Amino acid sequence: MSAAQIDVVGIGNAIVDVLSHAEDHALAALGLAKGAMTLIDAADADRLYDKVGSAVEASGGSAANTIAGLASLGGRGAYVGKVRDDVLGRIFAHDLKALGVHFETAPASDGPGTARCLVLVSPDAQRTMATYLGACVSLGPDDVDANLIAAAKATYLEGYLWDPPLAKEAFRKAIGAARGAGRKVALSLSDAFCVDRYRDEFLGLIDGQVDVLFANETELISLFQARDFDDALQQARGRVPMAALTRSAHGSVVLAGNEVHVIDAAPVARVVDTTGAGDLYAAGFLFGLTRDLPPATCGRLGSVAAAEIISHIGARPEVALSTLVAHLL
Amino acid sequence: MSAAQIDVVGIGNAIVDVLSHAEDHALAALGLAKGAMTLIDAADADRLYDKVGSAVEASGGSAANTIAGLASLGGRGAYVGKVRDDVLGRIFAHDLKALGVHFETAPASDGPGTARCLVLVSPDAQRTMATYLGACVSLGPDDVDANLIAAAKATYLEGYLWDPPLAKEAFRKAIGAARGAGRKVALSLSDAFCVDRYRDEFLGLIDGQVDVLFANETELISLFQARDFDDALQQARGRVPMAALTRSAHGSVVLAGNEVHVIDAAPVARVVDTTGAGDLYAAGFLFGLTRDLPPATCGRLGSVAAAEIISHIGARPEVALSTLVAHLL
Repeated sequence: MSAAQIDVVGIGNAIVDVLSHAEDHALAALGLAKGAMTLIDAADADRLYDKVGSAVEASGGSAANTIAGLASLGGRGAYVGKVRDDVLGRIFAHDLKALGVHFETAPASDGPGTARCLVLVSPDAQRTMATYLGACVSLGPDDVDANLIAAAKATYLEGYLWDPPLAKEAFRKAIGAARGAGRKVALSLSDAFCVDRYRDEFLGLIDGQVDVLFANETELISLFQARDFDDALQQARGRVPMAALTRSAHGSVVLAGNEVHVIDAAPVARVVDTTGAGDLYAAGFLFGLTRDLPPATCGRLGSVAAAEIISHIGARPEVALSTLVAHLL
Repeated sequence: MSAAQIDVVGIGNAIVDVLSHAEDHALAALGLAKGAMTLIDAADADRLYDKVGSAVEASGGSAANTIAGLASLGGRGAYVGKVRDDVLGRIFAHDLKALGVHFETAPASDGPGTARCLVLVSPDAQRTMATYLGACVSLGPDDVDANLIAAAKATYLEGYLWDPPLAKEAFRKAIGAARGAGRKVALSLSDAFCVDRYRDEFLGLIDGQVDVLFANETELISLFQARDFDDALQQARGRVPMAALTRSAHGSVVLAGNEVHVIDAAPVARVVDTTGAGDLYAAGFLFGLTRDLPPATCGRLGSVAAAEIISHIGARPEVALSTLVAHLL
């Protein structure tokens, strides 16, 4: 595909998920904050892995999940992220390319291996993550092709990119290229603890650099250090052109200029694993946005994509999402 | 665990599954026989992988799935199989040990990598497999600890072991050790094409070497080159002390001496992926057998374990099977 055909280019930490189950007391014993993403080093990754139950491996990474979802909906996606030239790196690349995603970031040929995220799913379907960033730490501005960014209708950035040291330079270069070309910039806040680590920088970004903000309740509350969701929502209004704020089973609220749309969650027979719910909501939303669909429709597309992903283990769709959204298009 | 505490030791090809979806026309284009297991070399494994959709990786291997299922039911399992000391080999070992399975086969430190099986799931939930045996080719009799075999109530062997050249020697050594200690020997026929490759040797085994035979309809018909299932069943009667013959949605038939038990399949809300159905049926059956439960109960335990595995992607249980069988114990 040529760059001119791209709807959304995502930039993020390229990660393979290791998905297992854990009771709440096991999470506590492992020292992990339930529902959050904790950064760990290689030794801790091995140590934790030895302590968890049997697992399944699947490509992950927040923005990569979003782009995979966009492609599954029929959108044209590109992705920038750093793996190593190892087994997990080949798995990660395969799973994006098999969906038709443009993914040409050169893998690292030395240094740490491809990033792994230990995803522990609780009986209540909540997920808790421990991430070893591995090769992601070598993603830098040289990996961002300004022409690719300029040619895509929207650039989607995950807040997690603030963790590896060089990636924020890639992040800033991408924002500059997108804005310079008159393209949209979307940012996901990723995680409440991540917001806590980089609050001032994220606030600086949403003031004038970001067109669409994705956040869940706790992330938005953390960003504004607000009393509650309603307080945070009022602070977001008018500060970003568009915001898609997810509330788990309570659906989402879409802010678009002065408009406020309250969107229901799509029905799910049984919630199995919430891993990737926010990522897939963003996939649906961006799919609609890059087709110039109304904000409420974008939110409904997000709800349907999120409903599919939480109905099974893992953060990549098990069915072609395009088959689930025809009624909304 | 000491060897004396083992219910079943399984010996098989130690494989990591790469699970993806494929329509029937795609299977034909890839040159794969639907429902069968085709052996491929490393180059073909890479070539096929490049052509299939996004995938999920999970530990597999027929006998390993059975022992994992046995452990999930609360049984005490051991496994013998050969991986390499690589990423996939560590995944395979982790997923058995995390279930409490005794798995101490030394990984290969050189030669081919850990075996991979490309599992393509059709829209009708049937699975088609292409296996690269990798490190499995170096499993040999030295990997079989006769004391371990002698101390386990039953030894379970997969017919697939006939494919790698040295493994049949391991297989024969295990049978000798088990029989010498007065333990039970169970054999799974694995695959109709596999039966076709080794029919005479398998017939030689079931005449006096095997106490429990596991086969599905097509495998049993192939073994005896019979007209139909009923013809094959009559040939099996009296030739092996016990046989558990699976018939997909039609349940199973258990032969025990002169007894014939017809067992219904357990209900499944939606059949998603039949990968591992036979393996998990064997897990349930062997769990019952090593607890001296009646043959029909063994069959019902098999049905329940199989029903769980076909309700989701992959051949390892997503829930503790012990929670599903209390009504049968």
